[in-house]
Amino acid sequence: MTNQSIPYPRVRITSKFWNRYRAMAVDNALPYQWRALNDEVPVDVPEGAAWGENGSMFSHSLRNLRIAAGREEGKFSGQPFQDTDVSKWLEAASYALRCEDEGMDVDELATQVDYVVSLFEEAQDEDGYLDTKFELDMPVEQRFQGLRFSHELYTMGHFIEAAVAHYEVTGSRKALDVAERAADCIDRHFGDEPGKVHGPDGHPEVELALARLYEATGERRWLELAAWFIRIRGVDPEFFDEQDKAGGPRFYPGLDMPRRYFVADGPVLDLEKADGHAVRLIYMATAIAKVGHLLADDGMRQTAERLWNNIVGHRMYITGAVGSCQVGEAFSYDDDLPNDLVYGETCASVGMLFYGRALMQAHPRGAVADVMELQLFNGMLAGVQLDGTRYFYVNPLDADPVGSAGNPVRRHVLTRRAGWFDCACCPANLIRLITSLDQYLYTVDGDTVYAHQFIANRAEFDDGVVIEQTQGGEEYPWCGDIRFVVDNPNRVPKRLAVRIPAWSERWSLEVNGSAVHLDSVDGFICVDVSGKATEIRLKLDMSVRRMRASLDVKADVGKLAVARGPIVFCMEEVDNEGPLWLDGMRVDSPIDERYDADLLEGVEVLTVEGLRLECERAGQYVVADRALAERPHRLTMIPYYSWCNRAEGQMQVWMRESH
Amino acid sequence: MTNQSIPYPRVRITSKFWNRYRAMAVDNALPYQWRALNDEVPVDVPEGAAWGENGSMFSHSLRNLRIAAGREEGKFSGQPFQDTDVSKWLEAASYALRCEDEGMDVDELATQVDYVVSLFEEAQDEDGYLDTKFELDMPVEQRFQGLRFSHELYTMGHFIEAAVAHYEVTGSRKALDVAERAADCIDRHFGDEPGKVHGPDGHPEVELALARLYEATGERRWLELAAWFIRIRGVDPEFFDEQDKAGGPRFYPGLDMPRRYFVADGPVLDLEKADGHAVRLIYMATAIAKVGHLLADDGMRQTAERLWNNIVGHRMYITGAVGSCQVGEAFSYDDDLPNDLVYGETCASVGMLFYGRALMQAHPRGAVADVMELQLFNGMLAGVQLDGTRYFYVNPLDADPVGSAGNPVRRHVLTRRAGWFDCACCPANLIRLITSLDQYLYTVDGDTVYAHQFIANRAEFDDGVVIEQTQGGEEYPWCGDIRFVVDNPNRVPKRLAVRIPAWSERWSLEVNGSAVHLDSVDGFICVDVSGKATEIRLKLDMSVRRMRASLDVKADVGKLAVARGPIVFCMEEVDNEGPLWLDGMRVDSPIDERYDADLLEGVEVLTVEGLRLECERAGQYVVADRALAERPHRLTMIPYYSWCNRAEGQMQVWMRESH
Repeated sequence: MTNQSIPYPRVRITSKFWNRYRAMAVDNALPYQWRALNDEVPVDVPEGAAWGENGSMFSHSLRNLRIAAGREEGKFSGQPFQDTDVSKWLEAASYALRCEDEGMDVDELATQVDYVVSLFEEAQDEDGYLDTKFELDMPVEQRFQGLRFSHELYTMGHFIEAAVAHYEVTGSRKALDVAERAADCIDRHFGDEPGKVHGPDGHPEVELALARLYEATGERRWLELAAWFIRIRGVDPEFFDEQDKAGGPRFYPGLDMPRRYFVADGPVLDLEKADGHAVRLIYMATAIAKVGHLLADDGMRQTAERLWNNIVGHRMYITGAVGSCQVGEAFSYDDDLPNDLVYGETCASVGMLFYGRALMQAHPRGAVADVMELQLFNGMLAGVQLDGTRYFYVNPLDADPVGSAGNPVRRHVLTRRAGWFDCACCPANLIRLITSLDQYLYTVDGDTVYAHQFIANRAEFDDGVVIEQTQGGEEYPWCGDIRFVVDNPNRVPKRLAVRIPAWSERWSLEVNGSAVHLDSVDGFICVDVSGKATEIRLKLDMSVRRMRASLDVKADVGKLAVARGPIVFCMEEVDNEGPLWLDGMRVDSPIDERYDADLLEGVEVLTVEGLRLECERAGQYVVADRALAERPHRLTMIPYYSWCNRAEGQMQVWMRESH
Repeated sequence: MTNQSIPYPRVRITSKFWNRYRAMAVDNALPYQWRALNDEVPVDVPEGAAWGENGSMFSHSLRNLRIAAGREEGKFSGQPFQDTDVSKWLEAASYALRCEDEGMDVDELATQVDYVVSLFEEAQDEDGYLDTKFELDMPVEQRFQGLRFSHELYTMGHFIEAAVAHYEVTGSRKALDVAERAADCIDRHFGDEPGKVHGPDGHPEVELALARLYEATGERRWLELAAWFIRIRGVDPEFFDEQDKAGGPRFYPGLDMPRRYFVADGPVLDLEKADGHAVRLIYMATAIAKVGHLLADDGMRQTAERLWNNIVGHRMYITGAVGSCQVGEAFSYDDDLPNDLVYGETCASVGMLFYGRALMQAHPRGAVADVMELQLFNGMLAGVQLDGTRYFYVNPLDADPVGSAGNPVRRHVLTRRAGWFDCACCPANLIRLITSLDQYLYTVDGDTVYAHQFIANRAEFDDGVVIEQTQGGEEYPWCGDIRFVVDNPNRVPKRLAVRIPAWSERWSLEVNGSAVHLDSVDGFICVDVSGKATEIRLKLDMSVRRMRASLDVKADVGKLAVARGPIVFCMEEVDNEGPLWLDGMRVDSPIDERYDADLLEGVEVLTVEGLRLECERAGQYVVADRALAERPHRLTMIPYYSWCNRAEGQMQVWMRESH
């Protein structure tokens, strides 16, 4: 068996912006999450939540593992998928071990990682089964018999992903062996043969995990099993009902979700639209893209493209948020993008990065990398407080503490990030993306290296080529002067494809001091870097853009948003007079920009000569005999990702357009 | 015992508009509802509703009564308060018997009324208890022990109201005796004395019913019992929990509503804001207003005024709809009036008419009568299809079939009226208002008669005075020429107070041919009508008004609504190109008006030279470099109450303001 990983350089991130986030992850977030998993941080249980009442008010997730490992006495507590909080932490921490190259101290983390791997190894049943909820709480014959909500494959999938990360970073097979035993257990229980379970987990995840396991081990059985789970999904829409009827275990008794929620209301490969639970759909689509590429399966590749295009074209907010609907944490319908009711789960934005990376492997395009950049600098990043210790699950584009407190339909929109959650999927998901960010910068396709993110780094390839990306001024995302230096001592044939973001209306590219006048193809300019040394300078257009949504998006009609480079901006009440909905700007109002190194860890701040509606209150409804007066009013905007790091208050991304 | 009813004339409605509605009620709605109560109309059970799965898919309400009466075998089925569908029908039908004066055939109705009264009489337990849910389904010792959701007093209250109506219309004491036995049963079980139940029903209603019973019978015990229920409400916020702990029966096990929902989170007389379930709050406030007036209790009167002012000033839509929130069918917070998420229950608008009438009795003011008119011609009336056989429970100001189908947060907003409901409170509630409309036209205070609605009628007073209101042209609400002829053969001292609606900026009043130049006081002009014959002519300003909401109402910023006289207008997709959200108008765009006798049973139709946003779709989010183009586009508007009587489609009340 050989490692089937797609070729990828050794990357050291040197970006000031992202080094700070990675240091935040290593120094604050992972230690903080370790405390949470060790029951030192109370969870944020919604009023009346069944789990909070019946079980622990803490994570209990590491305790579950210790109990299953026989190291401690006690009972299982938490969500059926509680193990995944540890698995995702393990994956994030494994990747973080690489941050030693960026000068961080990871010794304690390494000890914790070893400890967790041992716990999983000891908790694993001898037949390879690995899910403490079932091992501690449920009879053996119930295993895989209630997949609607049991999350068993979801849980094992997350461990498999963590084990692959651990193996890739440390070279140790210890976790990987546990993962392969788990995969083998799954393979023995699922399949077309009589007596085997013939349906998927309610929550996709194992499909992409098995594809990752195939990449790490070269064992084709895992890839085929992943493909099998994809191909059967939704083919028998009654699968979960049949398991119920056969007496399978049930979870969440009050929760009666439609089949669409599980992305299982019809054959998943036939899906025309991105419907259902957003994270489920995105994980599924990621697996379809990945497995479709690995198998060169056109049907899968087309489904993956179709769903991506539907999301990006009709179901994604300007910040990258996806999932318009709290009920079912779900997509709703095309162009339904209410800014104050949005779900926009942090995990969904993280998932869009998995999905985008998988699509790039199959077919590198600037448009996909643009969306990945949007998620990185906006949708995903808003999910974490600047210090790494508080998190959003839901990411609104229009927030109002009064509205969240006063109307249950907006209650899911927190206006302070929370320390932890009863369903704590987002914190470690976000951190595993940040600690593995080095894996999202390149796509290698034959002799072409696609450099699709403007994140300063040094990348070393097996053939001796070194690509160094540096940035001018305050660096990206604040400054758009990008410099690539390619060192190719062996003069191997090589092309560097540099992304031209769609948002950069003008740009210039110089190769070794000479301007290059080429149109980008699929969003990239390809430069031959087969020479011994090549210097490429790219200047991007960092002027402020006023953005408008398609008129199909009812929620944004008559509104403008502001972006600069990859950053979407917002207004916060702490900088502006409330209520913010009175503020407008003209499409051509001049906007001032300045970099403030002391604000919010360093951000570009925009100010605009806006216009504020004025009207004395003469009653709730009055006769309108003239247009309302507006007075000039200076408005301040900060990057969306940095909102909610100061005083609690209103926030809005879309602003009224004045005329 | 004497009849304590507030003095009221015998009124025959002659309004073309309302005669049609009353004929619709007698000829279509009541017979249709009779069929529904007799299980000939399937109920509209939401997907997954427990009742639909476990019990009848039909009303079953008359069967429950027949079973309790010993006329039929079977088991109870339906909501705990299923009896009230029959009680409200009985009340509506009793009032409808008066429509014989308007030339309608009510013989069959009278037979049905007699039958229903007999059923209730036979169903009543010998101790006066009257609730078939408990009589058929529950042990005797459970009675009044689970008031959070048992609805027992709510159920008996509705029968009491029906009995009072039956007595007032027919003079027969048969139903009234049953009602007094029920009231006596309540009086024996509730009170401060040890061993009695010391708390209210979760759903207010019995309070206003007991006040009505006092008015009909003069028995002060009923008034005092009503006052007792008001005074104890919310004083012990743990009352329902204590009943639960003591083993009281529980209903709706999955439904965990906060105390505020029950208007019982603190002493109700201390309430500052109209919070909680809208219908509960409004019924409670109606009782407070009514009992406060009857007892001359200042505290109660102030509470009633305070809550009314809060609703009308901050929590009512321009159509009169109240209740911003589907969760808990509730109020949310001041100025939170989202047009597409609104609840706006038909019962709540009907309740506002009860509430307004009670306030008028205490202190007649034009501002209160204005709101009653708004509800009559808009909020309430939209609840019924023009033919009387289909109903809205929820009354949106912005509807979109795609939105209702595609996002669960808008699923409660039907875009077709339904034939019946599993909780069928609205249909009979609305019809009982229409058949008792003659009771909403006057308030008599000493020698002053307040004529507060412009609904043509002939009113005969005990002192021989006859007031006839007639209207010119196509009559009200289309034409604002109002004529009162007062015939006073005995020359009794009398004043007629004519309302000047706040919406009529200009107006003129002539008394016996001479113009009167007076300012209105509290919204009324008082005219001495002590002479033998007086003719008063009022001309109201029926010009079209463009309306604007207070800037505190975020949902309506940058929008205009259109009204004419008492009628609020809307756009429907059947008359206009969709999507409607692209259409705007300037604050001064000319509006054409015409009466179309053949459309929607005769309506005023407005057309305006609007402006429609235009933009080719270049992507979901694009750079905005100039204001969007608008093209002139003729827009058609119809009265809001008449929407959804043709093809299903989008509807909107508030329209974008163009500049």
